[in-house]
Amino acid sequence: MKIRERGVAIGKLKPGKKNCITDVEGVMVGQVTLDYPLNDNDQYVCTGVTAVLPHGGNLFREKVPAASYVINGFGKTTGLVQVEELGLIESPIMLTNTFGVPAVTQGTLEYLLRTTPEIGDTTGTVNIVVGECNDGYLNSIRTLPVKPEHALTAIENANSEIVGEGAVGAGKGMVCFGYKGGVGASSRLIGKEQSSKDYIIGCLVVTNFGNKDEFPFSKYGLSEIPLETKETPDGSIMIILATDAPFSERQLKRLAKRCGIGLGRTGSHYSNGSGDIVIAFSTARTISHQSTGHVEVAHLIRDDHPLMNKLFQGAAEAVEEAILNSLSQAETTQGRQGRVVEGMFS
Amino acid sequence: MKIRERGVAIGKLKPGKKNCITDVEGVMVGQVTLDYPLNDNDQYVCTGVTAVLPHGGNLFREKVPAASYVINGFGKTTGLVQVEELGLIESPIMLTNTFGVPAVTQGTLEYLLRTTPEIGDTTGTVNIVVGECNDGYLNSIRTLPVKPEHALTAIENANSEIVGEGAVGAGKGMVCFGYKGGVGASSRLIGKEQSSKDYIIGCLVVTNFGNKDEFPFSKYGLSEIPLETKETPDGSIMIILATDAPFSERQLKRLAKRCGIGLGRTGSHYSNGSGDIVIAFSTARTISHQSTGHVEVAHLIRDDHPLMNKLFQGAAEAVEEAILNSLSQAETTQGRQGRVVEGMFS
Amino acid sequence: MKIRERGVAIGKLKPGKKNCITDVEGVMVGQVTLDYPLNDNDQYVCTGVTAVLPHGGNLFREKVPAASYVINGFGKTTGLVQVEELGLIESPIMLTNTFGVPAVTQGTLEYLLRTTPEIGDTTGTVNIVVGECNDGYLNSIRTLPVKPEHALTAIENANSEIVGEGAVGAGKGMVCFGYKGGVGASSRLIGKEQSSKDYIIGCLVVTNFGNKDEFPFSKYGLSEIPLETKETPDGSIMIILATDAPFSERQLKRLAKRCGIGLGRTGSHYSNGSGDIVIAFSTARTISHQSTGHVEVAHLIRDDHPLMNKLFQGAAEAVEEAILNSLSQAETTQGRQGRVVEGMFS
Amino acid sequence: MKIRERGVAIGKLKPGKKNCITDVEGVMVGQVTLDYPLNDNDQYVCTGVTAVLPHGGNLFREKVPAASYVINGFGKTTGLVQVEELGLIESPIMLTNTFGVPAVTQGTLEYLLRTTPEIGDTTGTVNIVVGECNDGYLNSIRTLPVKPEHALTAIENANSEIVGEGAVGAGKGMVCFGYKGGVGASSRLIGKEQSSKDYIIGCLVVTNFGNKDEFPFSKYGLSEIPLETKETPDGSIMIILATDAPFSERQLKRLAKRCGIGLGRTGSHYSNGSGDIVIAFSTARTISHQSTGHVEVAHLIRDDHPLMNKLFQGAAEAVEEAILNSLSQAETTQGRQGRVVEGMFS
Repeated sequence: MKIRERGVAIGKLKPGKKNCITDVEGVMVGQVTLDYPLNDNDQYVCTGVTAVLPHGGNLFREKVPAASYVINGFGKTTGLVQVEELGLIESPIMLTNTFGVPAVTQGTLEYLLRTTPEIGDTTGTVNIVVGECNDGYLNSIRTLPVKPEHALTAIENANSEIVGEGAVGAGKGMVCFGYKGGVGASSRLIGKEQSSKDYIIGCLVVTNFGNKDEFPFSKYGLSEIPLETKETPDGSIMIILATDAPFSERQLKRLAKRCGIGLGRTGSHYSNGSGDIVIAFSTARTISHQSTGHVEVAHLIRDDHPLMNKLFQGAAEAVEEAILNSLSQAETTQGRQGRVVEGMFS
Repeated sequence: MKIRERGVAIGKLKPGKKNCITDVEGVMVGQVTLDYPLNDNDQYVCTGVTAVLPHGGNLFREKVPAASYVINGFGKTTGLVQVEELGLIESPIMLTNTFGVPAVTQGTLEYLLRTTPEIGDTTGTVNIVVGECNDGYLNSIRTLPVKPEHALTAIENANSEIVGEGAVGAGKGMVCFGYKGGVGASSRLIGKEQSSKDYIIGCLVVTNFGNKDEFPFSKYGLSEIPLETKETPDGSIMIILATDAPFSERQLKRLAKRCGIGLGRTGSHYSNGSGDIVIAFSTARTISHQSTGHVEVAHLIRDDHPLMNKLFQGAAEAVEEAILNSLSQAETTQGRQGRVVEGMFS
Repeated sequence: MKIRERGVAIGKLKPGKKNCITDVEGVMVGQVTLDYPLNDNDQYVCTGVTAVLPHGGNLFREKVPAASYVINGFGKTTGLVQVEELGLIESPIMLTNTFGVPAVTQGTLEYLLRTTPEIGDTTGTVNIVVGECNDGYLNSIRTLPVKPEHALTAIENANSEIVGEGAVGAGKGMVCFGYKGGVGASSRLIGKEQSSKDYIIGCLVVTNFGNKDEFPFSKYGLSEIPLETKETPDGSIMIILATDAPFSERQLKRLAKRCGIGLGRTGSHYSNGSGDIVIAFSTARTISHQSTGHVEVAHLIRDDHPLMNKLFQGAAEAVEEAILNSLSQAETTQGRQGRVVEGMFS
Repeated sequence: MKIRERGVAIGKLKPGKKNCITDVEGVMVGQVTLDYPLNDNDQYVCTGVTAVLPHGGNLFREKVPAASYVINGFGKTTGLVQVEELGLIESPIMLTNTFGVPAVTQGTLEYLLRTTPEIGDTTGTVNIVVGECNDGYLNSIRTLPVKPEHALTAIENANSEIVGEGAVGAGKGMVCFGYKGGVGASSRLIGKEQSSKDYIIGCLVVTNFGNKDEFPFSKYGLSEIPLETKETPDGSIMIILATDAPFSERQLKRLAKRCGIGLGRTGSHYSNGSGDIVIAFSTARTISHQSTGHVEVAHLIRDDHPLMNKLFQGAAEAVEEAILNSLSQAETTQGRQGRVVEGMFS
């Protein structure tokens, strides 16, 4: 159940039809969940992979404008150097556990090499973006259960339906404010009253941050839920933001910065050991890998149009709601060493 | 009256004795307020200058570790290039209206040249930090009423008392969430339970941002106050953060980033036309301009100590409370063209 | 005489007709030189102001895409926060001595208020960019001889002719590699063979950096010129880059970064006390302050087109040649305390 | 043969005993070279791995101050987000080909998990730094020949001897200015005349950048060597800088920025498709992963001491010489599709 169905509404803008990142046309999400005990009784695999595809075509051949923003950089996200330099994303955006990053990068690379034979042969290489949180409280992360093939499966699973939330995919083993966290999604409509056109912002998060005493139950009209879980170490949050508004990479970074507002409103103080990272992209245009001309045409939203402030607001609201959705949807989950993390609403 | 006296408490950490930036030992603040009609009936001078001194000595000769963080860069703050390169502040931190920046820089320069004869003669130049917000809704900003001597007076007025808040100094003409804003101050104690030593964070803001419909009255247990004021353009906030904790410039930037949490919690979405800028410094050590040796000794807090997260929390809470203090203390103010901006609690 | 006329050719690309920043159509430069003794025999005014106008119209109403890059940030350039946030320049780019920054900002502000009555009244404020170097070796910088009116005069002097080089304008008192430095200019053609269109890069520098033993006389086929001057402190260089190529602000920052190549090739190691700052803009389009629509159309060069690498090369070559032109054109100059700085070719 | 033995001397500072990154005490380098045909006649494995260890102990338990600087970000280096946030390196610095990054990260992770059982169990995760260049001109990069075990072997091979240069390790398949490039190393002594203590800067590069017409043969007193090789695509350079000078992470970034000078002096214009990335660390102190106290003591060099400028010069000179050493040492190499890249001095 999404948090909205529990009577908690975040912000003032309306969500899209699915209240999900897949409300942004073309965006697809696929997930793989790993959930099984290992021979050794105390070890448990409780992790997964989530793939976000900006569109359903060949992302290397048709790239999208993108930016990242590092709220707090205690994280191992890979691929951001080139995103920063060129303002583009040219691969699926992959999410997994911290130690799964190399395997997921490897699998995504293999997928791209298979689907795009010119990479590494007649043209250059490809930049792969993989984000992560540390699910090591529940997941036997040292056993490296995520394999390259899980990345491929996640990509192949991708579709435009409502995204599974809570303890699924990359969110399977995550912990948020001491409760079970995981995948959350949401969206915000920025309506025609602001301009001649409707725009939408979609958000997907993997939540793995926060201490219990940071979460503002009363602000959300929730009664505090008793919690037996011991204190978990500093975690992380990965935030993926999609929009169909025509943004440049500079503007996408501005939008990405507003995600920290939504995060802060849930109680986070961007703790030291947290990798709080935003990746934002626009689907309004694609940039072809090959071109005969030397000039591209870009339509870009004006920074000073009132629409921009509404889009900023939309980003902040979408992040806050996606985080709450991750908590609302996550069920009590058991992991390694018999550890249990309770769902906030279980 | 500070917001706390109105029954609104922000966060969980305790404020210092004065609940003010001057709780950080050595920090001094001085202000000059300009408030008078011009011959032309419609023109009104409603502005001022606020000076924050990291210590009472010669700041050029004894510099302090510092960092800035630009939450949103629609602003004209000067001096940040060198702060970023060297991680130091070597002048008073001056605040005024947007068009007062050159005059205040000039006045501060003259003060530094007078008190430090070696500058520009036997040694190099000096880097002056001046921040600003646009008080042009109330203040006849085009008449350039702020003069270099006002900067000198503000510096000379500096003391360690509780800082005047609301419609004073650089805050005289500022508007926040459609209500009268201005100067606000606060502090947070980070107690001994976290380490062998008490630390404190002090904050001073000049608030000039936000639209009325962004302010969360109900979250603060306040009933919405009717507002007649017309919509004001995007504004700004200047945030000055002081601490006696031994921070490096990198760590001060981390602390400065958390100020955006406090700002976001008051309802702001860092609007496009807002110059939302943080300047943070530590008083834990000074760096001498002259030295015979080639090595300095620095004591630096460990990033991974639990204390760090408490300091992050303190920064977020102090900013939120300082903003509310600016609203709580600001009285209804009249300015140019007969415009009136109501105090939220007037 | 430009360095090229002395038989020293830099790089492989051809310069434009004037070998000057004003080869970029529409760019205008104006200068004011101050050169007189003060009553006190030892004091001497030896300084000035240089104004670079991206176009001859109202820059606030028709802004240009821009970026800055800080090679080394021991400098007091003002206005960069907003350039970074919005990717625009909306004022003349002013250059002067370090302590002249507030006066020049003030004068430029007065110019903009006079020519643009809506600023600070019916619309917001304006962001002014002023760069500087410290000419305090020759100039009695503590006497603050630069006044606001000198900024106005420099702007009013602006034209599209070949720029005066050496000991003029903001370059009047500057010292470079122990020799007389100052203003230098150059340009590079990026010819049709690369694309369907010719582009040009223009450069203007104010040189005030380097120690004598860093300059590579032999590399340039010059015999080392005896130098009596005592060691001067670390200086600075301001680099203004103009192009008619259709660059985004991200791409302009990439171009600006290549200016460090040209600087390094003249022998600089970006010394600690040097403010080495690049400001780059494109004249290919303007962005109107007012607009009814919410979307802009931008034509942007493709990053991967071979043209881009030629433009990078052009930036590096233009900076190196502009630096050498400043040395080639600067005449032996006398300043305060009877100090004399020799022209390299005097 | 190092370039110095060919009569080409770079700069004015003296190299250390080995003229190698291993002149910095404690630094160790290990390499693995892969060089064999695949069944398919046209396919050839021509690649490798190079590991740089800041010290010989457990790097996770005893971290070193570090910084990165992205000269041009068309690259896939991983691990920089956390280096930027915390100013530390806690793993070997690994170098390989672009598509080898996930395998090398995986192998390094396995090494760290094996040697440090607390990672991912009782303590948090670990940040691994892997840099890369694209050796796809010679190497059948699509066949993904680099495996996790090659990373382990490179780390286990690490020692403090003179580093093998040219077509070895990560440099096996690299191409520089159209000639055979690869691994290069160098060092610079910053002597006691500057301070009470000798310091040293060591450098290791993997060169894979530049077009033939960019290399300045005449500047180096070399006669141009005929080149049959076809034009290679934009490449990259990885630059690892080590010093025993007591630098903070901010100062290490300053040092890293000067590496672009050395690169530019060899003829590079930081081409669009080049990943030109610097990673710098100091061995002057280590930061323990575990600590009981909340404060660290750091000795830091003064930015304004003349020593700093000498260290800047040392970084620029060391990079230039390391690049030339890579060219001087690299032998003519054959790769995929019968392609041959000539050594400049073969």
